Amino acid sequence: MKKFINSVDTILAESLDGFAAAHADILMLGEDRKFIRRRELKPGKVALISGGGSGHEPLHGGFVGHGMLDAACPGQVFTSPTPDQMLAAVEAVGTGAGCLFIVKNYEGDVMNFDMAAEMADGVLQVVTNDDVAVENSSYTTGRRGVAGTLVVEKIVGAAAEQGMALRELKALGDRVNEATRSMGVALTSGTVPAAGKPTFEIGDGEMEFGVGIHGEPGRRRDALKSADAIAEEVCAAIAGDFGGRTEGPALLFVNGFGGTPSMELYLMYNSARKMFEKHGVTVIRSLVGSYVTSLDMAGCSITLTLLDDDMTALWDAPVHTAALRWGM
Amino acid sequence: MKKFINSVDTILAESLDGFAAAHADILMLGEDRKFIRRRELKPGKVALISGGGSGHEPLHGGFVGHGMLDAACPGQVFTSPTPDQMLAAVEAVGTGAGCLFIVKNYEGDVMNFDMAAEMADGVLQVVTNDDVAVENSSYTTGRRGVAGTLVVEKIVGAAAEQGMALRELKALGDRVNEATRSMGVALTSGTVPAAGKPTFEIGDGEMEFGVGIHGEPGRRRDALKSADAIAEEVCAAIAGDFGGRTEGPALLFVNGFGGTPSMELYLMYNSARKMFEKHGVTVIRSLVGSYVTSLDMAGCSITLTLLDDDMTALWDAPVHTAALRWGM
Repeated sequence: MKKFINSVDTILAESLDGFAAAHADILMLGEDRKFIRRRELKPGKVALISGGGSGHEPLHGGFVGHGMLDAACPGQVFTSPTPDQMLAAVEAVGTGAGCLFIVKNYEGDVMNFDMAAEMADGVLQVVTNDDVAVENSSYTTGRRGVAGTLVVEKIVGAAAEQGMALRELKALGDRVNEATRSMGVALTSGTVPAAGKPTFEIGDGEMEFGVGIHGEPGRRRDALKSADAIAEEVCAAIAGDFGGRTEGPALLFVNGFGGTPSMELYLMYNSARKMFEKHGVTVIRSLVGSYVTSLDMAGCSITLTLLDDDMTALWDAPVHTAALRWGM
Repeated sequence: MKKFINSVDTILAESLDGFAAAHADILMLGEDRKFIRRRELKPGKVALISGGGSGHEPLHGGFVGHGMLDAACPGQVFTSPTPDQMLAAVEAVGTGAGCLFIVKNYEGDVMNFDMAAEMADGVLQVVTNDDVAVENSSYTTGRRGVAGTLVVEKIVGAAAEQGMALRELKALGDRVNEATRSMGVALTSGTVPAAGKPTFEIGDGEMEFGVGIHGEPGRRRDALKSADAIAEEVCAAIAGDFGGRTEGPALLFVNGFGGTPSMELYLMYNSARKMFEKHGVTVIRSLVGSYVTSLDMAGCSITLTLLDDDMTALWDAPVHTAALRWGM
């Protein structure tokens, strides 16, 4: 295992400490590092709280700040945060207008966020499940929540910042999730520090179609394909899942899994954009980068969100977080 | 070789096309993809032009836009751009106030930018050489220009945007370069697409201290060390190179080489910050991410820039590029 670490037991704490020190103008850590919270709260605003296993950085901590999340609860690597983390976050960042949890659809996360929601007052939840690769998976009943979660957090975060009420935010989050589909491919496996070896074996000439962000199996193992062939299959899967109703404006998001450089991501974006145009998509907004990762896995996911004018305006609204920043 | 590509011959063109399509609001490509240029020019502003071999993305194209570069000339992977690329860029983005070339110190780059500077009128140059690892290297007489180049481009770019004249910009660029030192370490080698195999061999338990951004050898090959031990050695090398005069405010920049995830970079930042504090450094600005890469190499570099008030204000000034954006 080749990683920058001091000890497997302290990797999360040290990484969080570095993150909080580097972005002290935006955020700070809660007691015992239970959550990352926005430094300046906005009274009367619905609090947006997310979280999940670590190892997917910058998701979710990198999206804490003006126009996006109020708090993010980091679990251990690929392990759900515990309900007391979410409860502590609710207490710290709630300002009386209620809380919305944004939860990726994995059994552990859903269970723990549910438990916290029951114990707190005035909490609603949006569960993301944008991954079209498989219906059920290693840690999931139903579809997995993957990179599309970023899109939900950005758009709902902007609406919350503008003063939208809790029930409307929940409806908006569900609507953005419905308008969002993703699928990923892996060229290599990531390595969980505590395991010390790659999560899955994969041959030199192989790739995994439909991989999950924890290295879960996807649709199939296959020989490594060209970027165009990969994009063709992934985009067809996404367009097919939309029932072919992909004509119109959209956000195209090509996301790296942590071990793939920018040059390859832009090449994949170029291929995916051409493929989606054949499906009638007009790409009006784009995001390319490693935002929802799987440790050091080489690979990428492609996400398409069908946009209406409201969603586009909310996507464009100012955001000031460690990993996404524009308009301010 | 596991990469997202269609053909080795078209990787650069396709990646540039994707990049230009994703960021069409900021930039566009010149004819024959000779350069990436800022879409909106500012008449009367000195034009800042950089460039170099591809494979280091987002450097330099990702820094084209308001408050940073007016154009960037991409060579083939790890190969200098040709003088006609720089001449075409000068012609496209010059507005009569002169041009400043920002050039990393590699023999090919220096020769080709020199040639272009001689053929054009009103061009001055800043050559960056922030890498303290070795005095001469595979492609270099003197020190290599590495991640500190970003800092020079940001600070000089802000001053140019504010209307500073050519000679003063050249002096400022030299001053920022003098105030900046870097050193890198590699855990794995990157793979140049045309070569199809890793640039250098490195054992499972080994690392390279002082590696260059093309995988050039550094100071020594050694057993893989802890993050703290790596930071201690790198920070001591940088502080020593400053002659121990590191008391005062500074920018700490931890840069990933393309194959290292965010979690490890923040952990290294945490270690490096503590080490520099022992050298009397007060970290007042931070940057953590993969900005000056070496294809898919796992590793990172640490850069320290000693700041004065002017440099700090210019660092904070608004910037709107594909890879760095704040204040607008």
